[in-house]
Amino acid sequence: MRYRKIPDETIRRLPIYLRGLLFCSEQGRQNISSDTLADLLGTNAWQVRKDFSCFGGFGTPGVGYAIKKLTKEINKILRLDVGHRAALVGVGNLGSAVLAYPGFKTYSFDIAAAFDVDPRKIGRKVNNVIIEDVENISALKKRNIDLGIIAVPRTAAQEIADTLVEAGIKGILNFSPCYIVVPRKVKVITIDIAMDLARLPYYMPTR
Amino acid sequence: MRYRKIPDETIRRLPIYLRGLLFCSEQGRQNISSDTLADLLGTNAWQVRKDFSCFGGFGTPGVGYAIKKLTKEINKILRLDVGHRAALVGVGNLGSAVLAYPGFKTYSFDIAAAFDVDPRKIGRKVNNVIIEDVENISALKKRNIDLGIIAVPRTAAQEIADTLVEAGIKGILNFSPCYIVVPRKVKVITIDIAMDLARLPYYMPTR
Repeated sequence: MRYRKIPDETIRRLPIYLRGLLFCSEQGRQNISSDTLADLLGTNAWQVRKDFSCFGGFGTPGVGYAIKKLTKEINKILRLDVGHRAALVGVGNLGSAVLAYPGFKTYSFDIAAAFDVDPRKIGRKVNNVIIEDVENISALKKRNIDLGIIAVPRTAAQEIADTLVEAGIKGILNFSPCYIVVPRKVKVITIDIAMDLARLPYYMPTR
Repeated sequence: MRYRKIPDETIRRLPIYLRGLLFCSEQGRQNISSDTLADLLGTNAWQVRKDFSCFGGFGTPGVGYAIKKLTKEINKILRLDVGHRAALVGVGNLGSAVLAYPGFKTYSFDIAAAFDVDPRKIGRKVNNVIIEDVENISALKKRNIDLGIIAVPRTAAQEIADTLVEAGIKGILNFSPCYIVVPRKVKVITIDIAMDLARLPYYMPTR
């Protein structure tokens, strides 16, 4: 099932809600109000209710949202209910940080393969993943890997993206600060860590 | 001057537009249409026009937007026209990647200080920044540093945030996958790299 009408901005917030719900669930809560959830995530209750109304609005007045049910529903919408395996390309500083990052498990992601060009890195084991030669990126589909994470220098990003697409990857998380071009059937999300920093001064009090 | 009425979602997109405009400017262009800009950034022209209309809409029909003027205006809105100095706390894998990241210059950011707890790292120079002992985080205001970047393990994040606030920091970019609590006058933006990955499957074709 696809919920085609959900706005992209709501989709962008769903993982944030998911993390908040997980946090509450770990604290033993069963229900949560839109106010509490909004406070926790630094947004407003109106936004939460509006977002949730996109897929049916499961809240009960005076009780709030059932955390377990809502979590399940969001996971289903984002198609995180099936689990995904990702291949990381580029095990430099950023790539190593990605490999060591504990947060992927929250969303049922598994980094199942890692690739690099550096012969000194190839064969080494980082966080239970053995680093392979980039030359060997192929048939990722056969290995049940459908996501790629690009953490290579900017100049190599497009070439790696092409290779990943050829290997059957359907979605790419790109950490290189550049535009990469892929066929329409492949989705790319580019993360530029400087861009988030660039929003900060707007919200800061002037001296 | 503050443009108080600009929605948060527009503010979030302004740095993205800025990067696109810089890219076009580097290619020697002087004007750009909302269609071209939208294509470049993977969004739609309607969104671009709507966002720009928030602060006056500088486009000319048939000609498009003047890149130089628009860049200047967005920089002013985001208050990037003054330049900002940031302090990084935690020089592990992620912190090292942040220090080496070339993208900050695009937005006139300068990482002017770096701190860590590890005695083996303290005193070392990474990308022209000498790593200092976290014990020495204080009086950042005097050093003209107003932004903090937290790249420490989750368990240490809140304590570091408290220290940064005490030292006069007004904005924090938090890479630790956790909630941190700060006074109202301080703005925190938390980046969870797993959350962006969590949006990918929604957009991927089903097998």
